[in-house]
Amino acid sequence: MPFNDKLKLASQKNNSLLCVGLDPNLKMMPIGDVVSFNNQIIEATSDLVCAYKPNFAFYEALGSNGLRILEKTRKQIPDWIPVIADAKRGDIGSTSEAYAKALFDTFAFDAATVNPYMGYDSLVPFIQYSERGVFILCKTSNTGSADFQNLLVSEGPGEQNTIPLFEAVAIKAMSWNKHGNIGLVVGANCPAELRRIRQLCPELPLLIPGIGVQGGEISDAVTNGRGPQKASIIINCARTIIYASGGNDFASAARTKAQMIRDEINKHIL
Amino acid sequence: MPFNDKLKLASQKNNSLLCVGLDPNLKMMPIGDVVSFNNQIIEATSDLVCAYKPNFAFYEALGSNGLRILEKTRKQIPDWIPVIADAKRGDIGSTSEAYAKALFDTFAFDAATVNPYMGYDSLVPFIQYSERGVFILCKTSNTGSADFQNLLVSEGPGEQNTIPLFEAVAIKAMSWNKHGNIGLVVGANCPAELRRIRQLCPELPLLIPGIGVQGGEISDAVTNGRGPQKASIIINCARTIIYASGGNDFASAARTKAQMIRDEINKHIL
Repeated sequence: MPFNDKLKLASQKNNSLLCVGLDPNLKMMPIGDVVSFNNQIIEATSDLVCAYKPNFAFYEALGSNGLRILEKTRKQIPDWIPVIADAKRGDIGSTSEAYAKALFDTFAFDAATVNPYMGYDSLVPFIQYSERGVFILCKTSNTGSADFQNLLVSEGPGEQNTIPLFEAVAIKAMSWNKHGNIGLVVGANCPAELRRIRQLCPELPLLIPGIGVQGGEISDAVTNGRGPQKASIIINCARTIIYASGGNDFASAARTKAQMIRDEINKHIL
Repeated sequence: MPFNDKLKLASQKNNSLLCVGLDPNLKMMPIGDVVSFNNQIIEATSDLVCAYKPNFAFYEALGSNGLRILEKTRKQIPDWIPVIADAKRGDIGSTSEAYAKALFDTFAFDAATVNPYMGYDSLVPFIQYSERGVFILCKTSNTGSADFQNLLVSEGPGEQNTIPLFEAVAIKAMSWNKHGNIGLVVGANCPAELRRIRQLCPELPLLIPGIGVQGGEISDAVTNGRGPQKASIIINCARTIIYASGGNDFASAARTKAQMIRDEINKHIL
């Protein structure tokens, strides 16, 4: 089933646009067993989410054992819930093929985040998996995102019109979307940029991090992210939910928090 | 010991600017045991290189077992030879911390490649490891690198002067180099851009892929890469060397090829 269909079904079933980030950080976890931690978070929230999103960084930090944990975690997630590998990969074509194979075949993720800096041929190996989602970094939620993403670009020296680099990425992403499986990553804490990207790309699914700890407003994320066409959005939240309690009640606290955020998101759906 | 010192020592000891890419591809390997393949390549070339560079993609494609292979391969490389993790990572600050910890602490690599798209704060966790090298993607060796890296950028709407994005990355990299541990990745098959980057950054070490299969000329890479100041360069070659023979003599064939390329590089050092 194409990623967007799977996402829609899960979203409808759980009445949710919330994605829970599975980002295990030993310093913040009340228990040391990452597999068990993730399993309990999944069990407590699987009727409240439209997707899960593990970030590879937190698993790689644990070495090869971390990737084994990730394999186990992936298997623990119910089949009908899409899982987005947050890996931000991108390399020369032949190497990107290996990354795409890793994420989509070996680990069997439903979607992945990728970095556009190396251009189209670095993303083709991902895009060619037409049933998997490919979320291209566009305007990210960190402060440093302005360093390059907001630089004004033009295609040639005589070109009068300039647009920020992130808009150029959004426009290219549209032109690359032959299989209908491309989406964009846009931070909730950049509401103006989010609105602009939705104008440029009325229908692309948007993966929106940056609420919670990073300060983005849910109302902005929902209104600017969906746009007039009420297009697909996935609002990611990790730390605020999975570390809602530092105690042994972490799973029930995560459930309570996830429910609150899901309902808060839904309040803004008109 | 700071990365640049370690690199210089290995380079002097082996009279080499050649880095061998350890990119195991089961389809091209004459034997199925990746650990043994890598070990034999390392044994056959460790007196001919200034560094080794495993690319994570080829290990991740093998799942958690692949990362275990990477751990074993890393331990097999003699202590005095720097190992560059080609991972092209980059994420929001707190997540990049996990990646930096993964690459520099967990896997104990001497240097890593990173992607600049997310800006300075996404790279700080790497740069803060002042004894490790951080190679920022600048102008990459793939065709698609022109999609964004060659767009002309200006800092503001009134700004008349425009430069290609990759030059903006090079200039920023210089300003971020407080610990003297930053380098740039520049493709050998972009000789004009390589020369320009060396003009902008007379002293930054450059990691130069793109010779061999990708078509870059060794003479250009050496002359344009080192520049008038004869600055540090690392010329990477993977497939041409490690798959020099598809038969059981792969290790001796790799040695012969590595020696040829090392000597060819040295011929152009004036």
